[in-house]
Amino acid sequence: MEPDLDPLLAVLEDGSLDGYLIDDDDSDSDQRYVSGFTAPDAYQTLVTADGGVHLLVSGLEYGRATKEADADSVSRRSAYDYQALVAEHGSYEGTVRTIAAFLADHGIDSVAVPRNFPTGTADGLRERGLEVAVEREGVVEGIRATKTPWEANQISATQSANEAAMAVAERLIATTEIEDGALVRDGEELTSERVKREIEIALLRHGCALDETIVACGPDGADPHNRGSGTLEAGELIVIDIFPRDKGTGYFGDMTRTFVRGEPSEEARQRYDVTREAFDAALEAIEPGVTGAAVHDATCDVIEDAGYETLRSDPSAGTGFIHSTGHGVGLDIHEQPSLSPTGGELEPGHVVTVEPGIYDPQVGGVRIEDLVVVTEDGYENLTEYPIRLEPRAN
Amino acid sequence: MEPDLDPLLAVLEDGSLDGYLIDDDDSDSDQRYVSGFTAPDAYQTLVTADGGVHLLVSGLEYGRATKEADADSVSRRSAYDYQALVAEHGSYEGTVRTIAAFLADHGIDSVAVPRNFPTGTADGLRERGLEVAVEREGVVEGIRATKTPWEANQISATQSANEAAMAVAERLIATTEIEDGALVRDGEELTSERVKREIEIALLRHGCALDETIVACGPDGADPHNRGSGTLEAGELIVIDIFPRDKGTGYFGDMTRTFVRGEPSEEARQRYDVTREAFDAALEAIEPGVTGAAVHDATCDVIEDAGYETLRSDPSAGTGFIHSTGHGVGLDIHEQPSLSPTGGELEPGHVVTVEPGIYDPQVGGVRIEDLVVVTEDGYENLTEYPIRLEPRAN
Repeated sequence: MEPDLDPLLAVLEDGSLDGYLIDDDDSDSDQRYVSGFTAPDAYQTLVTADGGVHLLVSGLEYGRATKEADADSVSRRSAYDYQALVAEHGSYEGTVRTIAAFLADHGIDSVAVPRNFPTGTADGLRERGLEVAVEREGVVEGIRATKTPWEANQISATQSANEAAMAVAERLIATTEIEDGALVRDGEELTSERVKREIEIALLRHGCALDETIVACGPDGADPHNRGSGTLEAGELIVIDIFPRDKGTGYFGDMTRTFVRGEPSEEARQRYDVTREAFDAALEAIEPGVTGAAVHDATCDVIEDAGYETLRSDPSAGTGFIHSTGHGVGLDIHEQPSLSPTGGELEPGHVVTVEPGIYDPQVGGVRIEDLVVVTEDGYENLTEYPIRLEPRAN
Repeated sequence: MEPDLDPLLAVLEDGSLDGYLIDDDDSDSDQRYVSGFTAPDAYQTLVTADGGVHLLVSGLEYGRATKEADADSVSRRSAYDYQALVAEHGSYEGTVRTIAAFLADHGIDSVAVPRNFPTGTADGLRERGLEVAVEREGVVEGIRATKTPWEANQISATQSANEAAMAVAERLIATTEIEDGALVRDGEELTSERVKREIEIALLRHGCALDETIVACGPDGADPHNRGSGTLEAGELIVIDIFPRDKGTGYFGDMTRTFVRGEPSEEARQRYDVTREAFDAALEAIEPGVTGAAVHDATCDVIEDAGYETLRSDPSAGTGFIHSTGHGVGLDIHEQPSLSPTGGELEPGHVVTVEPGIYDPQVGGVRIEDLVVVTEDGYENLTEYPIRLEPRAN
């Protein structure tokens, strides 16, 4: 992948800075994006004003970095006498001196750094005479919002794994018996925990992992951040929201479906139909040049017209449509752009969720979510999973 | 849990600072430790000079934080007009002003911060007149090295799940047929990938997750950082290293076993026996007051006496015992203290791995690893898993 670093280079030029420095571990998607590399322990990525990408890694990671990274050069810390510097000056000062030597080696006297750059490193470099300026707008996150075709393919692959996991969950629910109002399989009540575990196992089989997943029934589903627990009940709305990450590429997928096993209430069915209509309206609105705010408005229009509250009609609403319409997905599960009141113009290559929902503890929650990529003339849906309230076994 | 924050309070007193501030997300174990809380997005933890712990969280996390955190107070960002500040000043400046208002509310004019504290926040607070000083020694990491009995129990629980996963892996290997030198089950070659997947599934069933696991056969096992891939072979050393994390508590376990299915070479068997002897010598050496360096020396003595190289006998050795004897385990998989040339005095409550190994691409790798807690008069082994070269089905 060749990320377009021009907006970052413009920041360096505007600030008369020699380079952009990242110092972080595998929790930092910006660094992974810029370097094409990730490692569990901290390493450093330098982007020079001519667009060169240079890595500083431990000896342990050196071999892998030279093979895997999208970098013009990879240096190991030992090339700058890291061990001797730590022995003489301690871990903190030794590390700072090693990074300073790496920067000097590349002719760097001044750097821009991201907001989350370690203050310890920043202050240490400043003490050694370097200029360190915080880049405040999140320029790399902005670049990451627009996916290359390769990136869109990775996200699509994770979403395919996600579909396999959703199919496992739907089948589990569809094949239950109903006994005393509870869903029962093989003589045992089917729980949220059991469905989540089977989702996770299905994802593992497809090379994906997740920290959390949502299988929330009845009132649990009315709180968009409740992960759900306990027995699944007949006739109640069950919200299933899965957001796995491919273990190799690091790209996420994201999808939500809502099911009822048994007979839903009339009100639940109506909310499902309105959510589906809002979902279709949001998709209909997506094309380059349209703002995320406009897509969100199109979604709110449908839900408000049907008589439900939104955060647009009442900013303090506790029921109705109480979140935004969507968010960017990539190396982070939540990234730019957003389909929300503050969402800016959509561009080809943006990958966003579309996920309207209607919530009320008295009725439960409904949410329908697909993942789409904005194209030159509209969007392509990266999700191929049926949307239906009644779960089926296949 | 009541962490002993006295060493941190001493840092504040020495520096005449009003408080210690952490600003990070769930990748930061120090913050999780101090606050008893974790959240996917950034939140702030303030420790005041009197030992008070005060959190600043989003509205989304407020309810959970008030229930779960070990904090004297929890504030939500909206209490400091976060949304209005962001609307007026943008995300960066609005966030800094919110944190500054939170600090002012607690009467804080000067803070110590960890090395990895975001430079964006540090510089922003400094522009608003606050003193921000980097705490360079990692005092919270030092406190975390000594586990409370509750923490040792959590680590022990994760290690029990780890044992269940190791049993699945051992059984898989033990129940293979040998065909043309390959391990075969149900007519299919047993691969590293398959064993890893079954390990992960077993851990999921016990509420644990892992990012990586090692099942490395033959030459793969001779590189301590190779995760392993492809068909497992008969008569070859197979290194299995599992380091899961409990999804609820966040505490890690860590264990390694080495197996051979079929007949090992004489040399492989000898290396196994020497590694076992070194493992026993290391355990024998562990007690309060002994340094991690001395434990490492005891391990090296055995391995060198048997005629193999170590990094002590040759710092550039590429074969033999080419890593340290052990590391601390807790909310991070690698933390203080270390059983290595720089390892300081062991204290009751330290939890460390003991994991000698001998490596050579010509022979393969051997590693044996248990996890122990240092007690008043020695150690308690948190691992109850047999150590044997020949895998068994039960």
